[in-house]
Amino acid sequence: MKLSQLFTKTSKTVPADETARNAQLLIQAGFVYKVMAGVYAYTPLGLKVLENIKRIVREEMDAIGGQELIMTNLQPREVWESTTRWSDDVVDVWFKTELKDGTPLGLAWSHEEAIMEMMRQFIGSYKDMPVSVYQFQTKLRNELRAKSGIMRGREFVMKDMYSLHASAEDLDAYYQQVIEAYKKVYDRLGIGKDTFVTFASGGAFTKFSHEFQTVCDAGEDILYLHRGKNVAVNEEVLDEAIKELGVGKDELEKVKSAEVGNIFNFGTEKAEQMHMTFAGADGKEHPIYLASYGIGITRVMGVIVEKMADDKGIVWPENVAPAYIYLARIGDDAAVREQTDALYDALTSQGCLVLYDDRDLRAGEKFADADLMGIPYRAVISPKTGGKVELKARTGDSTTLMTAEELLQHCKQQDLADVLA
Amino acid sequence: MKLSQLFTKTSKTVPADETARNAQLLIQAGFVYKVMAGVYAYTPLGLKVLENIKRIVREEMDAIGGQELIMTNLQPREVWESTTRWSDDVVDVWFKTELKDGTPLGLAWSHEEAIMEMMRQFIGSYKDMPVSVYQFQTKLRNELRAKSGIMRGREFVMKDMYSLHASAEDLDAYYQQVIEAYKKVYDRLGIGKDTFVTFASGGAFTKFSHEFQTVCDAGEDILYLHRGKNVAVNEEVLDEAIKELGVGKDELEKVKSAEVGNIFNFGTEKAEQMHMTFAGADGKEHPIYLASYGIGITRVMGVIVEKMADDKGIVWPENVAPAYIYLARIGDDAAVREQTDALYDALTSQGCLVLYDDRDLRAGEKFADADLMGIPYRAVISPKTGGKVELKARTGDSTTLMTAEELLQHCKQQDLADVLA
Repeated sequence: MKLSQLFTKTSKTVPADETARNAQLLIQAGFVYKVMAGVYAYTPLGLKVLENIKRIVREEMDAIGGQELIMTNLQPREVWESTTRWSDDVVDVWFKTELKDGTPLGLAWSHEEAIMEMMRQFIGSYKDMPVSVYQFQTKLRNELRAKSGIMRGREFVMKDMYSLHASAEDLDAYYQQVIEAYKKVYDRLGIGKDTFVTFASGGAFTKFSHEFQTVCDAGEDILYLHRGKNVAVNEEVLDEAIKELGVGKDELEKVKSAEVGNIFNFGTEKAEQMHMTFAGADGKEHPIYLASYGIGITRVMGVIVEKMADDKGIVWPENVAPAYIYLARIGDDAAVREQTDALYDALTSQGCLVLYDDRDLRAGEKFADADLMGIPYRAVISPKTGGKVELKARTGDSTTLMTAEELLQHCKQQDLADVLA
Repeated sequence: MKLSQLFTKTSKTVPADETARNAQLLIQAGFVYKVMAGVYAYTPLGLKVLENIKRIVREEMDAIGGQELIMTNLQPREVWESTTRWSDDVVDVWFKTELKDGTPLGLAWSHEEAIMEMMRQFIGSYKDMPVSVYQFQTKLRNELRAKSGIMRGREFVMKDMYSLHASAEDLDAYYQQVIEAYKKVYDRLGIGKDTFVTFASGGAFTKFSHEFQTVCDAGEDILYLHRGKNVAVNEEVLDEAIKELGVGKDELEKVKSAEVGNIFNFGTEKAEQMHMTFAGADGKEHPIYLASYGIGITRVMGVIVEKMADDKGIVWPENVAPAYIYLARIGDDAAVREQTDALYDALTSQGCLVLYDDRDLRAGEKFADADLMGIPYRAVISPKTGGKVELKARTGDSTTLMTAEELLQHCKQQDLADVLA
């Protein structure tokens, strides 16, 4: 992608109406555009990051048998009334609207009831389960306040998965598989080391539910952590959980953290409320077991920004970055221009994602933009590089010179981290 | 994909609450699930079709410099009030909702105003244009009636592109480029021959706007057509247009048609209403020129079903089908099972999309499902095929026997159409 053709521009001015650093940086770097509080559009750069995160999540959900589909925003009242969750007193984040004839509709903030209702059509017997389905969906939630940038939006992208089972044992086994899949997701997103499976408050069928929490100063939660024992407890259930786990409160480190995922065992609660049964191997009718598993895609993007950014701007992990290399042409020398254009074409044609700064700007401005946008590696060609390419990692200070051929080779192997180590 | 693992099931029963054939077939074949009138979820098979259509559209929009982004569903009142389009009297398809504090919000049915508002931040000078941006977005429209299945939904996926220009000439040139790109899209979707650029009613700045209309009995429009002269006129502007074009009404064929795309030149209307100007080369401020270009992705999917289906079910064009081959194992013979499993693995590992009917059903049931689901080619292995594979096109009657190796080769070349011709 050539920056001269991209319609977004970076800005040196911190947006006055944003207190969250993730939103400030993403707006300044041209990754998101704020429509109103908690409502952000994603520009071409931002969309690329979202698609990268989605691809990783999709691969891991597919690997555990998840079937991708897409449910609807518009929700009928009756389905949600059957579980009491239509009521604004029970669920306080509904946006509601209505058809021309006055029929009330809800705008989906989650999809447990919708999935269960659909599965009436497809599940009759224990042989039809387990089923695991997931979607990437734009959810709407009528949050009272929206001050955390894209970490808590009124409109946001979520991966929500739902699994239906014929027995508690089968659900439990799959639930563990999802935990392992989630760990792989956070590892691949570059936040695995600081992300913990956390005990949080449960529901009707389990004492505790599980959250995935990432240690992060901008987080809204308080976590009690024992890194050695790999134990993490949300403050809200601290007393109960430490009793259960047999650890002392004084052994635990208190940190701020941000929720990046959340899994929930509903047991047969939804099926009982919605009168949904299946014919068991015993010939009798039994209620269906349900669990749901969420990852806020836009939220994770915000957490990554908060966690990784430095005083120069965003720092994207390689797997998430909209490009692998920020290629900057410095000066207007014809030979330099020709060499940089050729390198861009060569990199692009071998499938390497390059952000090519072909604009007529000073070196300092280009370097500042490369840092603000957080692209993992910066490659510079200038009259001073003597026909070679000067390479630097976004998070390192040292530079190294290599030929265009060497750079092409390393981009093919995606091993620039090793070269600059 | 193995049918034994897919959660959807086909149904022999035509849904009683659907009059549109596209919805009937898509529901029976397990591609969509009806949530309420005009509101459909897309199952794994349906989502694959949508993604195929989106991929084709994306490639053609990228090829003419379109930059993909994603705007928001939630829309602030002020932006739309500035062009009078907030009013329900002016736009009668709004779904409206509100924030906790009572602030009214609209749910986006289109994005001209939203795009223009965003571009305030990025366009200051004529040098910042042209800009062309597009998105695949779930749009909500409060249709009074919703009886056309996925051809006119209350919730549907649309590709909407917007281009901004510094002059009418520049807009006109790009507008022509989009027309050519749209033609390529419909060609690749398999409906190119019966799709026409159509004169329809214009707006403040043009006498006529253009629609893309596909000849289709289920369509809601009436078209007057001259295939030889490649002229098509929407009934609503017939008298005006034939005067302009110099053709006689009696030369024109009257057909039913469905709109599959629609492009619109707003001129400077939006910019004038929204007070959006740019600094021209002459140093003066000028209003921005805007055009918008839509393709209803879900609508096109519905039109393809209506247009191509026969009495046995859906007929997907190859580029759109969720799989290239429907592989059916007949009977429970161990050798057949082993051979079919191996062929499935081989096809899958070479990247061929296969729907593998590995269920324990009779041949007749499998063949009926293959036809209903509309997969372009059916490959059968049974005790009668003598170690070979029996191949048949969805739309042909003749079959041919070939070895597994031959099938693999033809799938790699995607030339089964030629083999069966």
